[in-house]
Amino acid sequence: MIQILDDINQANDIKKVNQVDYKQLAREIRRFLVKNISKTGGHLASNLGTVELTMALHLFMNFPEDKLVWDVGHQSYTHKLLTGRKNEFSTLRTYDGLSGFPKRKESECDAFDTGHSSTSISAALGMVKARDLSGEDYKVAAVIGDGALSGGMAYEALNNAARIQSNFMIILNDNEMSISENVGGMANYLGKIRTNSQYHNFKKSLEQSLNSIPGGMGNKIMDKLRRSKDSMKRLVISGMLFEDMGITYIGPIDGHDINQLLMAFQSAARVKEAVLVHVVTKKGKGYRPAEENPSKYHGVDAFNIKTGNGVSHKKGKSYTEVFSETMVELGEKDEKIVAITAAMPSGTGLNNFSKHYPNRFFDVGIAEEHGVTFAAGLAVGGMKPVVAIYSSFLQRAYDQIIHDVCINSLPVIFAIDRSGLVGSDGETHQGIFDITYLSHLPSMTLMAPKNGNELHDMLIYASKYEKGPIAIRYPRGRAYEELEEFRTPIEYGKSEVIYEAPQGIVLLAVGSMVETAVQVKELLDADGKEVTLVNMRFIAPMDEELLHRLAATHAIWVTLEENVKSGGFGEKVAGFLVEHNYQNITQLIISLPDEFIEQGDVSILKEKNGLDEVTVFKKILEITKGVRA
Amino acid sequence: MIQILDDINQANDIKKVNQVDYKQLAREIRRFLVKNISKTGGHLASNLGTVELTMALHLFMNFPEDKLVWDVGHQSYTHKLLTGRKNEFSTLRTYDGLSGFPKRKESECDAFDTGHSSTSISAALGMVKARDLSGEDYKVAAVIGDGALSGGMAYEALNNAARIQSNFMIILNDNEMSISENVGGMANYLGKIRTNSQYHNFKKSLEQSLNSIPGGMGNKIMDKLRRSKDSMKRLVISGMLFEDMGITYIGPIDGHDINQLLMAFQSAARVKEAVLVHVVTKKGKGYRPAEENPSKYHGVDAFNIKTGNGVSHKKGKSYTEVFSETMVELGEKDEKIVAITAAMPSGTGLNNFSKHYPNRFFDVGIAEEHGVTFAAGLAVGGMKPVVAIYSSFLQRAYDQIIHDVCINSLPVIFAIDRSGLVGSDGETHQGIFDITYLSHLPSMTLMAPKNGNELHDMLIYASKYEKGPIAIRYPRGRAYEELEEFRTPIEYGKSEVIYEAPQGIVLLAVGSMVETAVQVKELLDADGKEVTLVNMRFIAPMDEELLHRLAATHAIWVTLEENVKSGGFGEKVAGFLVEHNYQNITQLIISLPDEFIEQGDVSILKEKNGLDEVTVFKKILEITKGVRA
Repeated sequence: MIQILDDINQANDIKKVNQVDYKQLAREIRRFLVKNISKTGGHLASNLGTVELTMALHLFMNFPEDKLVWDVGHQSYTHKLLTGRKNEFSTLRTYDGLSGFPKRKESECDAFDTGHSSTSISAALGMVKARDLSGEDYKVAAVIGDGALSGGMAYEALNNAARIQSNFMIILNDNEMSISENVGGMANYLGKIRTNSQYHNFKKSLEQSLNSIPGGMGNKIMDKLRRSKDSMKRLVISGMLFEDMGITYIGPIDGHDINQLLMAFQSAARVKEAVLVHVVTKKGKGYRPAEENPSKYHGVDAFNIKTGNGVSHKKGKSYTEVFSETMVELGEKDEKIVAITAAMPSGTGLNNFSKHYPNRFFDVGIAEEHGVTFAAGLAVGGMKPVVAIYSSFLQRAYDQIIHDVCINSLPVIFAIDRSGLVGSDGETHQGIFDITYLSHLPSMTLMAPKNGNELHDMLIYASKYEKGPIAIRYPRGRAYEELEEFRTPIEYGKSEVIYEAPQGIVLLAVGSMVETAVQVKELLDADGKEVTLVNMRFIAPMDEELLHRLAATHAIWVTLEENVKSGGFGEKVAGFLVEHNYQNITQLIISLPDEFIEQGDVSILKEKNGLDEVTVFKKILEITKGVRA
Repeated sequence: MIQILDDINQANDIKKVNQVDYKQLAREIRRFLVKNISKTGGHLASNLGTVELTMALHLFMNFPEDKLVWDVGHQSYTHKLLTGRKNEFSTLRTYDGLSGFPKRKESECDAFDTGHSSTSISAALGMVKARDLSGEDYKVAAVIGDGALSGGMAYEALNNAARIQSNFMIILNDNEMSISENVGGMANYLGKIRTNSQYHNFKKSLEQSLNSIPGGMGNKIMDKLRRSKDSMKRLVISGMLFEDMGITYIGPIDGHDINQLLMAFQSAARVKEAVLVHVVTKKGKGYRPAEENPSKYHGVDAFNIKTGNGVSHKKGKSYTEVFSETMVELGEKDEKIVAITAAMPSGTGLNNFSKHYPNRFFDVGIAEEHGVTFAAGLAVGGMKPVVAIYSSFLQRAYDQIIHDVCINSLPVIFAIDRSGLVGSDGETHQGIFDITYLSHLPSMTLMAPKNGNELHDMLIYASKYEKGPIAIRYPRGRAYEELEEFRTPIEYGKSEVIYEAPQGIVLLAVGSMVETAVQVKELLDADGKEVTLVNMRFIAPMDEELLHRLAATHAIWVTLEENVKSGGFGEKVAGFLVEHNYQNITQLIISLPDEFIEQGDVSILKEKNGLDEVTVFKKILEITKGVRA
């Protein structure tokens, strides 16, 4: 069978496709996506939901001249397919392969790199202004999901978009979901528009009432109402909230009907201001398992197309699972424990807690800023809030952590999953800055567990600590299961010495790097070196008592962390050595470079960035030459 | 004359005041505020505008049981007056004195420390939830200005507040201003409500039309319309936007009429959900100069009550003025230059640019997140955006700087005023984290000028740099005017050696600390020491070539910065020395401690924290003992 998709090899090729073949092309794209993602893994449900929307945008816009910004960007696969990247899909989300997100480096058809939520309207509005100031006339559009609309930044952008007087198309891709179900006033509002009940009922009853008046009086009233300027328009158009803000609203539109979409875009293009096109789509569209459970098929590993089941093997308990179980335990023990997530009940593992203690569980939507300050308020009220937000997303609440939690010195617990390298999601999702952005904050305690048990124990410890905030960072994926015999009680600010040699080399390892340090120690042992191994446990404050003791005996210090170097643990130790004038100690800092780290398997990324045991071992050997050890 | 205010000495005393005396008490409070602030300086216009509102809240609520959260907090003076802090006003905003913001440490009547904008609804909502979970029944209220409503976090909070089913009072203090005039769709919307035109006109014309129908048909139609549930209510109540989100709206209320306010609060208290009370106040109310120019009287130094003129002496050009002038120069030279402020056109000095180039000036409202990503979009479109945001407020856009500017590697210029100690605004406003939160970001260049000329030159340099973002940090207040003879052209990543000795001590100073370093050098010179003085210019990247050269000759390194130690410049240099194994060098890190720094005169704060020239000199002398220098 001849495939239409075969003829689409570069941007704008889709414009050559015959209108009667649009449906067939959409089917082929879906088949292509399911087939490829079933092998590589990736974002499935969001991409299946936006096939027709993307096709319509590509029929309507010209690339790369026109600028299209994908919010979050995990729905951009069809866009990649239609802009000459079809043959790279076998490398999706692998090292050096095709990114799962828009990337300016990858194609000039990608206007803006995204990965985090709610940025698209702001970025696109900047492009609109740049276009107008430069006297150019390309089209600019942002595609934002209804989930991303719960992020305050999107509202800030709408608030500013309401002022412009040239065309800017904001496409609201409304699938009634973020990764999980949406929450809050805006979600309810969109629901009302979708069902059409309220506004359209009113319009209908008004019209019927007026028509039922004898003698043409009804028409006169209607005229009079129409003359009262905006009010009537506000009444009869559904999107009154957007209109209230000054943004033209068009919709709702069936997001799987290309002709309807094109008509809507053409109408929208004539508006000389910001115009919101409300498109309703179905996440997972066209692949039944994903349609039925879009949350499960949001981001998937490789799977069997027929059954929809994952093909990857279970590899032991993840840190997320340890957190999930511990939270249920904590909730049982202490009724003051409450949990907050920003639209990630499943990813963070809080879904179990939410089932057991629905009243004490808060999904605030994609709203990290609010979530953190809300937690601060809960703490003021005597609760013990646990805020579970991924490392890279918590960056959004940096000021709220400082201003609302730390200055108020409130006992909020931050459970920071996806700290360190996360793998295939790449630059935007690597949790490689949190040691830097948290450990310098006054009143903040920062910890990292070496294995699953220690994460459990740290959470229990944190739930009893009342002097200020505690953050616990732990990585994506499988929890380390070794060193289970080392389980001394957590004591504030104290590290755990795993092995102690009388002198020689000391490995000071943070969290996930304890596992690497164990392997490095084995290599050094085999090489006849004397090695002390410390699980730091606390990054801030550091265990200075232990450091002073080790300074007296150990001449070579190796710090190991999965964080950028700058502002990280290694520099903190360097600062300590300087401050106390320990000039005879040679320090080796093992950390990630001060660079964004691309996508790829975590083990590959560690190797490429010198965090694997062999590279560390070699670097230590180099250092030991010429130093008494 | 007997003052009513004399009898108000602790919380709830106001409840004893006779209703007929409310107006007199309001007058006395205003007189007290004007008199005191004219001596101490402080926030004037915002506090004069909220006298009756605060009185009404204190008549309505019980302190400290009930929880009242002041957004930003610069309008909390009357609250302080009414809660037993009257006699401390002479110490307002001074070291160890009364804070200009709510402070939990200061009074148990202060529920939450604030200083930054748009946090109040989130924090108060947390307290509401904590109250309900604990089975208690105290009142919770947030007071938020219309300016603060342009911050996305407030919207995130409203979006979540829409879901609760117990009482939560959100008081919108609408004075049509943030510090300057408000902007955007929300401001327009509030304006419409205030003028009442649209909605009420429609209601009126509908009613008139229906009444004009003969035979009682009009009433029937009205009944029919009423039966269509919410639609009618939405029509006739002004606050449709809030109601659309699911928040009950009451207002607008005259914010200077205590009886009206009390009635509104009593109505609001009966609502078992989030209820927004829209209060209209006048900034500067009761003091004519402030009423006429509320922006000028937002935050003031001491002034003459009769004339309204400031009494402080002009002390030379400020960095803000240098920035302001340079921006006009840049705007003239290069039409690609655009400027962005987040509701601070006057404070940042961009008001001049805005007058010269209104089309290239963007005040996005209190919306730092949007502002930064909007700038990224402008850069994608070929513009050269300059984002002027104070150091402590830019914290809010940390993720947007990473995710939208740095990952996209866009040439956005950040002009960071109020870096370092700011003085009397205290903890929330000190710009003491920016070296840490900016210098570790891949692709970010961070600079700091030694004097006014250098700020000018750095801005010109940055405007021509196209490889990525550049941030320039400079302090509040007077620009250093010495060292004008040192004006070598800026070269990427290169420091400026001011004095070079063949060996001995090297002072590596960042920005504002060059001035201190000059003084320290004089003291060391007098003591017969050999001293090299370096103006770092670049914090990231550091001038490693120079550092290597100095390492060969100088055994004592002193780093000086106005930033916390952790993740700061000193630790970066320590990391450099470690990495290159310069074991013979003794480093002294002069920085702020890893603590929040309270309010007070900057010179006092410097002394208290060891950043003054005498303390630095003494520490260096200690270090030199026993070290070859």
